[in-house]
Amino acid sequence: MTKINVEKKIQSDNETIAEKNRRVFTDGDVFVLNIISSPGSGKTTLLEATLDRLASEFNILVIEGDVTTERDMDRVRAHGAGGIQINTGGGCHLSANMVSEVLPDLDLESADLVFIENVGNLICPATYDLGEDVRMVLLSTTEGDDKPMKYPAIFHESQMAVVNKIDLLPYLPYDIERAEKEVRVLNPQCEIMRVSALKGDGMDEWCDWLRGKLAAKRAG
Amino acid sequence: MTKINVEKKIQSDNETIAEKNRRVFTDGDVFVLNIISSPGSGKTTLLEATLDRLASEFNILVIEGDVTTERDMDRVRAHGAGGIQINTGGGCHLSANMVSEVLPDLDLESADLVFIENVGNLICPATYDLGEDVRMVLLSTTEGDDKPMKYPAIFHESQMAVVNKIDLLPYLPYDIERAEKEVRVLNPQCEIMRVSALKGDGMDEWCDWLRGKLAAKRAG
Repeated sequence: MTKINVEKKIQSDNETIAEKNRRVFTDGDVFVLNIISSPGSGKTTLLEATLDRLASEFNILVIEGDVTTERDMDRVRAHGAGGIQINTGGGCHLSANMVSEVLPDLDLESADLVFIENVGNLICPATYDLGEDVRMVLLSTTEGDDKPMKYPAIFHESQMAVVNKIDLLPYLPYDIERAEKEVRVLNPQCEIMRVSALKGDGMDEWCDWLRGKLAAKRAG
Repeated sequence: MTKINVEKKIQSDNETIAEKNRRVFTDGDVFVLNIISSPGSGKTTLLEATLDRLASEFNILVIEGDVTTERDMDRVRAHGAGGIQINTGGGCHLSANMVSEVLPDLDLESADLVFIENVGNLICPATYDLGEDVRMVLLSTTEGDDKPMKYPAIFHESQMAVVNKIDLLPYLPYDIERAEKEVRVLNPQCEIMRVSALKGDGMDEWCDWLRGKLAAKRAG
């Protein structure tokens, strides 16, 4: 088998399991977000800030993907989330199968929102459907405004792009309009939002977006 | 063949070609640095700042690894580097074979320093020897001080760790001592340096380190 055929087979198998996961999530009546970014863009900080605002309103579960350590799971637990850690043991992305294996350990019946924090990697997780409702890419103002065109796959595959760390804009040579324009060129349907998870800017709008997505899913 | 055996075969083939590359680099009497980091940690900005200081003193070549686009190559060319772009076409790291294929197009005989800017990815490039003299990991203060323990492989495999963007420390919840301590726990032999490629802090020491490495290699 050629390399391309092996990759097609892996993607096809992944898609089959992702569809099964999606049915489990839909049966549980939860909204599921798959969050993808470079290391250090603020995925865990965004989850902490979201939990601080929504943990009393919704039952929130987090599936934490990491190469190693339970550090991020400890952080989100401290902010009121239940959930489970997946360590990939060096692997560079989550797969639908890894998520499938932990689903029996999650109490989806009593949950509202499920956040999947993928492994910190802007390339490899892009094409792995996990069964989520929305695939989201998190950008950071500190990473440079040229990232969308340099890592196009994840922007093609995402329905939501959030630009984090906007509180640092005064100190950075970052053209946020340029970054957002590049996202729109790659994927005109992708929604875009700006936040500072650390300082709170944009977090009300972000939480409203989550409320709206959950309500829309439950309305069928 | 099991997955583990396939991976061992890939690594073994890569190591064979990396040793060939290393002989070509040694015959060319150049010092070669393989720079690895997350997207947006400042690899290209560090190269620009290095070229501004050393391009009149040394003949410098850059091998630019990217998923797509020639943006980084355009940037380093504008600062006085020769070299060549490798687009991986979606691939998440450079391999020794990709580097081997472009070596005939590089004038190593008249070069002093060769910088290989790897694809922006803190996981996948870690174990791919390209034939370099030193594998270096670039950290950014904006990424959080917990990165070494969360992405240990690259810190095990690197001989040099540079912490970039130290000019932003006043605005960040970043404990630089914690990050450096984690690097030392993972790899006590790893050298560590602090810079701001954008503002210039630490760049004199960085350039002296490069001069020393080149002199040591040429002294045999």
